[in-house]
Amino acid sequence: MATENLQWQLASRPRGAASPDNFRLVTAPLAVLRDGQVRVRNRYLSIDPYMRPRMDERRSYTDPQPLNEVMQGGAVGEVVESRSADFKPGDPVLGRLGWQLYATVAARELTCIEQRADVPLSTRLGCTGMPGITAWYGLKHIIQPRAGETVVVGAASGAVGSVVGQLARQFGARTIGIAGGAEKCAIVKNEFGFDACLDHKNPHFAESLAQATPEFIDGDFENVGGPILNAILPRMNAHGRIALCGLIAAYDARPAPLQNFVWALLNRLRIQAFVITEHPHIWPAAGNELADLVASGKLHYRESIVEGLENAPKALLGLLAGTNVGKQLVKLI
Amino acid sequence: MATENLQWQLASRPRGAASPDNFRLVTAPLAVLRDGQVRVRNRYLSIDPYMRPRMDERRSYTDPQPLNEVMQGGAVGEVVESRSADFKPGDPVLGRLGWQLYATVAARELTCIEQRADVPLSTRLGCTGMPGITAWYGLKHIIQPRAGETVVVGAASGAVGSVVGQLARQFGARTIGIAGGAEKCAIVKNEFGFDACLDHKNPHFAESLAQATPEFIDGDFENVGGPILNAILPRMNAHGRIALCGLIAAYDARPAPLQNFVWALLNRLRIQAFVITEHPHIWPAAGNELADLVASGKLHYRESIVEGLENAPKALLGLLAGTNVGKQLVKLI
Repeated sequence: MATENLQWQLASRPRGAASPDNFRLVTAPLAVLRDGQVRVRNRYLSIDPYMRPRMDERRSYTDPQPLNEVMQGGAVGEVVESRSADFKPGDPVLGRLGWQLYATVAARELTCIEQRADVPLSTRLGCTGMPGITAWYGLKHIIQPRAGETVVVGAASGAVGSVVGQLARQFGARTIGIAGGAEKCAIVKNEFGFDACLDHKNPHFAESLAQATPEFIDGDFENVGGPILNAILPRMNAHGRIALCGLIAAYDARPAPLQNFVWALLNRLRIQAFVITEHPHIWPAAGNELADLVASGKLHYRESIVEGLENAPKALLGLLAGTNVGKQLVKLI
Repeated sequence: MATENLQWQLASRPRGAASPDNFRLVTAPLAVLRDGQVRVRNRYLSIDPYMRPRMDERRSYTDPQPLNEVMQGGAVGEVVESRSADFKPGDPVLGRLGWQLYATVAARELTCIEQRADVPLSTRLGCTGMPGITAWYGLKHIIQPRAGETVVVGAASGAVGSVVGQLARQFGARTIGIAGGAEKCAIVKNEFGFDACLDHKNPHFAESLAQATPEFIDGDFENVGGPILNAILPRMNAHGRIALCGLIAAYDARPAPLQNFVWALLNRLRIQAFVITEHPHIWPAAGNELADLVASGKLHYRESIVEGLENAPKALLGLLAGTNVGKQLVKLI
């Protein structure tokens, strides 16, 4: 039985872009379990864009990531020790277990994972977990695409965007992905089945968006903001819907002002921002539906896996720079 | 019977701010009425912020104002000649009658005005007409304030804003107006009964907004955009609602970029833009409700009246510069 833990803490808040020296790797003894607690050996850490704004100290939908405490984040792992009747060693579990080898948490903070041979454990952090459910909610509850409508998805090769496009196609919508670089665009089209994918690094991106949306845009699943949203707003159809899920272009304290917000008015848009943790009632059904789609081969996904806890900060910085394809994970064991 | 008309046409599209030389005053003979047509002698012209973006040639919710044609806009007047069984000389009517002495229109384009001694005709262009109904819709259908919530209203001394605040108070909401200058702010508080009014010309406007909204903001009736919306977005409460009605700061081709759009995400806002002409089904009930409020003294209003057709461009340019209080009208007779 291990007696020592290894964990990443937030050492300092970024000034501008996050950098490796904002993180600190520390060892700490593993305390004896208290009644009702469970010890989990983390297997995969989830690396997500939302982690960056939480490194700043500003009012948001959650408290900021505390300084000098373990970096918070979702993970899947295996119970190694339990003082709860609900869990036994060997159980696969999901929770906000943090960037560390071992998490010691109250049993009520853990979710038991249904073991399915046809649904890999790691997808519980990706297309069948939080990112997939985020896609599901924003598309089904906010964009609500009708057959023949055009749906645009930024960060289309990512964990959320790749699911949005595949679900939108099930509604009969025309799906236009946006991604950075020819390689990602090819994956978006060929593996995720989007009707088209545009490279936002193309200096003529706005023109290519106009060409790719001859009937304009009815729904925008917005993960990015900045220049990409600026190009999308004038191309929206009247009464279009924007599911505002993330603004990765505005993280790292880059300003990313919206020049074209006036088009939200001119096009009579509905913009609905959401945070998926505020909609817990949809999680079980959405997760099951997504798991069934994976099992039946109807939902494709990619994972970018970095090995070893020591590389967790690198994985997050890479995600923010767009080096990942699909779900970014850190594999511990 | 008059045989000659006088009308303002759009002579050129503005480059930047609109100016007097964008308009041209012309005389034209009055054609003989055709069957089904009605001739109206205009009494009051409605001058509205939306007229400015329509002077530009860009895709919007309506076609642009055509060059070399009469300036379009709402007006009230009196039938002077009719070849329709639905109207007779002397009838007071409302319609999109344009900046001219006489309008010759199909009978179906006119709305008969119920004559009420306790509801002045001019208010059919203001608090009991389009601007009032705009306030009514944005507040009741989008913001939906609950008692104790805080509602912020830009251009609070204007035709729309002044109604928004008075209706919001009927819901038990705390109402914070925003207006330009101490004089307007005093009117907003003392005549329109807002709980507070902030001067957006104050260099510490953002700080004064924060002080005036200790429990943050639940609803924003947005008419202005630009720096004012930038100050509002971070002060919104979680799940706040923005009724996006106008962006006067973005007209005149001033850029007015939104620096703080990220707060729409962080605060999980719903932003719903609307154009009141797309909701015709609510007009009769809303108009009657507002007329009853005026008649019973529960809805206060102000009018800024410019005399004479020749001053119509000046009235619009003044409105865009914020010189009006309440509804801007041009009185012809």
